[in-house]
Amino acid sequence: MNTGNDDNVNDLIIIGGGPAGTSAAIYASRGKLDVLVIDKDIGQGAMGGEHLVANFPGFPEPIKAENLLKRMREQAENLGARFMQDKVIYTDFRKEVKLVATPGKKYRARSVVISTGSMGREPSLPGEAMFQGRGVAYCAICDGAYFDGKTVAVTGQVDRVLEELYLISKYATKIHFISPTGKIKEEDLERLSEFEKVIPMPGYRVKEIVGSMKMEAVLLQGPEGEERLETDGIFVYLQGNKPVIDYLVDEMEKGENGCIRTDENMVTSVPGVFAVGDLTCRKVRQISIAVGEGCKAALAVESFLRGREGAHSQWGT
Amino acid sequence: MNTGNDDNVNDLIIIGGGPAGTSAAIYASRGKLDVLVIDKDIGQGAMGGEHLVANFPGFPEPIKAENLLKRMREQAENLGARFMQDKVIYTDFRKEVKLVATPGKKYRARSVVISTGSMGREPSLPGEAMFQGRGVAYCAICDGAYFDGKTVAVTGQVDRVLEELYLISKYATKIHFISPTGKIKEEDLERLSEFEKVIPMPGYRVKEIVGSMKMEAVLLQGPEGEERLETDGIFVYLQGNKPVIDYLVDEMEKGENGCIRTDENMVTSVPGVFAVGDLTCRKVRQISIAVGEGCKAALAVESFLRGREGAHSQWGT
Repeated sequence: MNTGNDDNVNDLIIIGGGPAGTSAAIYASRGKLDVLVIDKDIGQGAMGGEHLVANFPGFPEPIKAENLLKRMREQAENLGARFMQDKVIYTDFRKEVKLVATPGKKYRARSVVISTGSMGREPSLPGEAMFQGRGVAYCAICDGAYFDGKTVAVTGQVDRVLEELYLISKYATKIHFISPTGKIKEEDLERLSEFEKVIPMPGYRVKEIVGSMKMEAVLLQGPEGEERLETDGIFVYLQGNKPVIDYLVDEMEKGENGCIRTDENMVTSVPGVFAVGDLTCRKVRQISIAVGEGCKAALAVESFLRGREGAHSQWGT
Repeated sequence: MNTGNDDNVNDLIIIGGGPAGTSAAIYASRGKLDVLVIDKDIGQGAMGGEHLVANFPGFPEPIKAENLLKRMREQAENLGARFMQDKVIYTDFRKEVKLVATPGKKYRARSVVISTGSMGREPSLPGEAMFQGRGVAYCAICDGAYFDGKTVAVTGQVDRVLEELYLISKYATKIHFISPTGKIKEEDLERLSEFEKVIPMPGYRVKEIVGSMKMEAVLLQGPEGEERLETDGIFVYLQGNKPVIDYLVDEMEKGENGCIRTDENMVTSVPGVFAVGDLTCRKVRQISIAVGEGCKAALAVESFLRGREGAHSQWGT
């Protein structure tokens, strides 16, 4: 009888094939572990887009995010990792052999790395999704340089955007600040006044992002009706990203906003389960950090599987 | 009068241009900081060699270590970082403007990242330096795969090599274990007996590594005089690597073996001074981890320079 289940017990299942998970796959495969990566779609996730990555070390010219991720995946596959496109719907990590289930099949492994990121927030502004990477941006250190000498808008709570304004100011010539509610408190206006290039727009809210090939303007709801603000880009800081962990049934130690807590070796509170990338409680989100975590997790998995403490290697390759 | 000094106060000086330091240069330059990297020689350091790197994410085909590092440096330069080939001989980090001195010149900066690695150990076996990367290896997870189906020797204390033997066993067909002193304790022999492929050689010490284009054999001093052991490679685990920090005059919190202690954001005990790479107290040595640390340090430097806490960015590029 075909149960639709995979009776093979893998050394390691990695849930999520972004840079963190794929890095773990590279290092674990290189260490000759039997690795299965289950990823719902290479086109999804923070690295799925067409946006250019300029600061991942090793690429003197900016590279498209999706191409960088494809290169990582190819490398993992060359080293023996298997990738499966499927959506994990539940997991059971209580026993030594862990269970990972998709709608059609159950997979088993002696260890699991979770790396499904934190892309939970859906674009909420009309036009936002359409112009992602073509004017709509979410991170100043990532994309600020693309707005060198240009005009941008920024929308989000003042507390949330201050650090970002500092960075955006290094590039943009003019920055329109639009509050999500239309209201800007007196003390916030004072804080914004520190930034020479920032023009606070009290009384205005973003209604829609419009353009053709790329975004061209923001339609604002103002005190006297709709207004059109010509701008080259908009940085959107609305709501937080939430860790994507809907498939996690098990109790696991979590932090603020549901992020997964790990120690410095990416070990979670559940034995044999490791977490890397943007679903962890680290605040900064950068590919290079995610990739370093993937490496650490692979080494921790190796240690765990062989039941020994620590992981040492002498040279930097 | 030309004092031989650079009166310019940089935002950031990075001492050491390996992957960790160069990654910090990439992210800091991208953040529009004014960055000077002082490196004694791109050919030195753990990444200076011809050895191939197979597991740095983003490179489906193995890449020569020195080429990978050159690509990172080119990227940092494209983003505006300046590189200077010089040897730092002392530093003074006590004041807000920090001093970094080379034999001919004094440089100043508002923040410093130290990243001079830990290559202190000189090759000590006759022939070891000559056959580095051509049979002589130091790290199983890095280079084990190159000895797939081959015969190797391993020399080092049993405690130090156990983890490595586990990994080497996945590739090599036969592993000769040679103790540095020639003696192997009874309990150590028992531990080695766990490994099917390991042949302990009590009474033997390594005298010399010999070969022509690549290493071909190890000359051993045995109970009955010199013997020749034909082998494709030797993994050498003698003495520890020491952090290269001879130029550091300042008091700084250190760990075992003189490694530099940092928090998770790469902040040292000296305000405005950050440490990344193999001179930190982290045990695992991998390029991807070093590069992630470089990124974290650059963000910490930015926060420090603007006198604010924390460093946030929303997306993974």
